[in-house]
Amino acid sequence: MSNEKIPYKIYLEESEMPKEWYNVRADMKNKPAPLLNPGTLQPMTAEELAPVFCEELVKQELDDTTPYIEIPEEIRDFYKMYRPSPLVRAYCLEKKLGTPAKIYYKFEGNNTSGSHKLNSAIAQAYYAKKQGLKGVTTETGAGQWGTALSMACSYFDLDCKVYMVKVSYEQKPFRREVMRTYGASVTPSPSTETEIGKKILADHPGTTGSLGCAISEAVEVATKSEGYRYVLGSVLNQVLLHQSVIGLETKAALDKIGEKADIIIGCAGGGSNLGGLISPFVGQMLRGEEDYRIIAVEPASCPSFTRGKYAYDFCDTGMVCPLAKMYTLGSGFIPAPNHAGGLRYHGMSSTLSQLYDDGLIEATSVKQTEVFEAAEYFARVEGILPAPESSHAIKVAIDEAKKCIETGEEKTIVFGLTGTGYFDMFAYEKFHDGVMDDYIPTDAEIAESLSKLPKVD
Amino acid sequence: MSNEKIPYKIYLEESEMPKEWYNVRADMKNKPAPLLNPGTLQPMTAEELAPVFCEELVKQELDDTTPYIEIPEEIRDFYKMYRPSPLVRAYCLEKKLGTPAKIYYKFEGNNTSGSHKLNSAIAQAYYAKKQGLKGVTTETGAGQWGTALSMACSYFDLDCKVYMVKVSYEQKPFRREVMRTYGASVTPSPSTETEIGKKILADHPGTTGSLGCAISEAVEVATKSEGYRYVLGSVLNQVLLHQSVIGLETKAALDKIGEKADIIIGCAGGGSNLGGLISPFVGQMLRGEEDYRIIAVEPASCPSFTRGKYAYDFCDTGMVCPLAKMYTLGSGFIPAPNHAGGLRYHGMSSTLSQLYDDGLIEATSVKQTEVFEAAEYFARVEGILPAPESSHAIKVAIDEAKKCIETGEEKTIVFGLTGTGYFDMFAYEKFHDGVMDDYIPTDAEIAESLSKLPKVD
Repeated sequence: MSNEKIPYKIYLEESEMPKEWYNVRADMKNKPAPLLNPGTLQPMTAEELAPVFCEELVKQELDDTTPYIEIPEEIRDFYKMYRPSPLVRAYCLEKKLGTPAKIYYKFEGNNTSGSHKLNSAIAQAYYAKKQGLKGVTTETGAGQWGTALSMACSYFDLDCKVYMVKVSYEQKPFRREVMRTYGASVTPSPSTETEIGKKILADHPGTTGSLGCAISEAVEVATKSEGYRYVLGSVLNQVLLHQSVIGLETKAALDKIGEKADIIIGCAGGGSNLGGLISPFVGQMLRGEEDYRIIAVEPASCPSFTRGKYAYDFCDTGMVCPLAKMYTLGSGFIPAPNHAGGLRYHGMSSTLSQLYDDGLIEATSVKQTEVFEAAEYFARVEGILPAPESSHAIKVAIDEAKKCIETGEEKTIVFGLTGTGYFDMFAYEKFHDGVMDDYIPTDAEIAESLSKLPKVD
Repeated sequence: MSNEKIPYKIYLEESEMPKEWYNVRADMKNKPAPLLNPGTLQPMTAEELAPVFCEELVKQELDDTTPYIEIPEEIRDFYKMYRPSPLVRAYCLEKKLGTPAKIYYKFEGNNTSGSHKLNSAIAQAYYAKKQGLKGVTTETGAGQWGTALSMACSYFDLDCKVYMVKVSYEQKPFRREVMRTYGASVTPSPSTETEIGKKILADHPGTTGSLGCAISEAVEVATKSEGYRYVLGSVLNQVLLHQSVIGLETKAALDKIGEKADIIIGCAGGGSNLGGLISPFVGQMLRGEEDYRIIAVEPASCPSFTRGKYAYDFCDTGMVCPLAKMYTLGSGFIPAPNHAGGLRYHGMSSTLSQLYDDGLIEATSVKQTEVFEAAEYFARVEGILPAPESSHAIKVAIDEAKKCIETGEEKTIVFGLTGTGYFDMFAYEKFHDGVMDDYIPTDAEIAESLSKLPKVD
C-alpha cells in the first residue's frame, strides 16, 4: 500500500469504538490460577473480596467465562473525551531506519494522565460511584496511576485519597500538583494517618517509603473507612479487562486499513498495558483463527518473565493482599533504581503469566541505557517524547525493524506506546549527562529473593 | 443537532488538511504598517532583513497581497505527524455549566512542544534548511517556543541554539532537558558567549536575564555566525501566516459538521495563536461574506490591547530589532510576575493591532487568579490540563456561555486551546496554595512606560 492509502494517523470513528470489553480469560483453556486467601490458601471468594473492592469489580475479577462485557454508557462517554487513541503509522521512523518493515504504534499518551492508566481508572471510579461509595483509596509510585484516578474521581465527584511513595512525593512535586488540580488528597507514604504507617515510621525513622508500604496504607484506610474501597491500576484481571479497549481499537484500526500484524510488542511491568494491547489478538490465537508473534519487553533490572519463577506469591511487599500465581522475582525483590517506575514490579499479572507459560507470548529484557537511546531516537524522528516504560517497546520494535533490513522481509510490527515522558525529564537528564546506571540483578540475588516465596503445596 | 450527530472530537481527514496558508493581509484594506528601520525610519527592505531572517521568510514577511501561499509538501508531511488537531465539542463543559450555548475548542496541545508553536517552527526550520543554512538561533522564555524549534530542527537536521532566560533555565530544568533531547544547545542568558551578554553581565552582575536580553544574544549570534539566521515564534507576519493552519482547520471542521461560529475567542500575547485562529474568519468579515464576534483575551497584568497605545515601538526590550506599529505598553514595560509567560509581551502583532484598530476584533483582560479558577474547572470537566496562556480564553468562553444561560441564546462559541500545562505546575501550586498575586499596573506606570516610545514622524 502506498503512502496515499494509509494516513499517518488512523482514527476510528466514534461509532466504531468498542462497546464491550473483551475478557481473554473466557477463551483460555488453561485459566489463570485463582487468587488465594493467604490464611486458608483457598481461592478468594466474592465475599472475601467485597470489603476491599467494589462489588461489580469483584465480579469482573472472578469471571473467567464471559467473553464480552458491556462498557457502560457513562464510561463510553468519558472515553470519547480522549479516545479513540490514534494508531500511528511510523512513516518517519521507517524511513530513518531504512527498513522494509511497516511499523505502527498505538499511542495512549494524549490525555492528561499521560498514559493508558485512565482506561481502567474511569471504569473503577464509575463502579464505585454506582455502588454509592464516598470515595476510593490507592497508592501511586511514579504518579501516572494516581493522576488517572484523580481525573476519574473528579469526573464522578468521588473522594480520592492517594498514598504516594514519599521519595516520589518529594522528587515529583509536579505530579502531586496535577493530582491536587483534580481535587485528590495526596499523602506522602509512610504517613501517620494509618496504623501500618505509624509502625513503619517507628521501625524505620527517616524511610522514604516503598510501593508496598503505600499499598498497605491505602488498603488499611479503604477497609477502615465507611464508604471507601481500594483500587489498583495494574496486575488484576479487572484491569486487563478494561485495558482491552487498547487492543480492540488497535485491531479495529488495522482491520479498517486491511493490515495484519505479524509482531505485536508491549512493555511489561504488572501487565496492564501489555494485557490490554494483546487481548483480542491472543483471543484469535486461542480460538485457532490467526497467529501472531507477541513480545513482552521488561527491564533487565526487574526481569520477572525472563528470570522469575512461576509460583504463588504475595502481590505486595507488605503481604496484606491475596496470593497470586504469577511469574515473580519474590515479593521482597527490590529492583535497582530504574527510571521506568511503572515497570518496577516484582511480579506479572496472572493472566499474562499463564499465557506466557503456555507459550503464547515470548519475553525479552532490555537495559535502561539502550532504552533511553531508543527513546531519544524515536523522539527525534516521530516527534513524541516517550515515557521510559513505553520506550522498552520502542527499543525492541526498532530491533525487529532492523532485522527486516537484513532479511528483506516486509513485516508489520505493532507496538504499544503507552505514554509520554513529560514528568520523566529527571531520568532523561541522567541519560544526557551519561550517569545512568544499568545494574542487573545477579543470579544469587534473585535466588535469595525467590527462596522466600510463600509455601503453597 | 443531537449528540449522535456531532462527535466529541471532530477530526479532518488527512486529505482535508489545508494545502495553503491564508494570508489575511491580502484581504485587509488598511494594511498593517510596515516595519521601520530604527536608524532611517524608512520601511525595512528585503535586503535589510536578509542578514537576520531566511530569504523565503523575508518574502512572506513583506507580502501583503498574496492571499494563499502553498504549504510545501515537506511541511505538510511533518504536520501529518501531529495534525489535524481535533476540534472538540465540549459536551461535558456545556452540561456542567447548564448552558444552551454550544462550545467548541481547537486543541493544539497534542504534540511534544505542548502548544501551537510547532506550526511555525517547522516552517521556519524548513526554509532555513532549503536555503542551505547550518542552523538557527532563537530565544525562549517559558520554553514552549524553544521546544518547538528544537523538534523542528532535529527533524531537518539543523543546528539549534536556544538562549533561555536564565531564571527560566534554572527554574524549569525539565523544559531545558526536553530541548536537549531534541539535540538543541541551550544557553542561559545573559551568557559570556556574546558581546551583549558580556556587557550586560558586567553592568548587572547576578542578573537573572530577560527576554529582551535573550533576543539580543540570539540575534547577535545569528548575524555573526556563517550560515545562521535568527527565528522568532510570534508577533511577525510570517508567524501569523503559518499559524493560519489552526483557523483553516477549525473552519473546515465547522463547515464539515454544518456549524457556524457566533463568537471566536483566543488568548493574546504576541498574537501568534489568536492571529492564526481567527485569520480565515476575519477574511470572511473583510470580504463582507460573514460576521463574527471575535474576542482577544489578555492578562490584566500586561494589557497591551486594552490599555496600550497604537504607535511605533521597538519589538524587543534590547532595541536591536526594527520598529513595528502596534498596540504597545512601551518596550521598557516590565509586567508583574505572571505565570502565563507566553502572554508577557509588551506589544501585539501589527496585523492584529490594525484589525483591532479597525474594529474587527474586540479585547478584554482577565486577572490571573480567575484564569486559574477557570483552568481548574475546565481540567476537571474536560480532562485536559490547560496551559495558563490558553486558560485566558477558557475564562472568557465560560463567561460567554454563562451569559447564554441568562438570555437563553443557543450561541456557538469557539475558542483556541493553545496548549497543555504540564510544565506549569509551579504556577498551579501557587494557585492551590492561595499565594498567587493579581497585580495590575497603575495608569501612572503605563503612562511612564509609554512616555519613552520612540519618536516616529
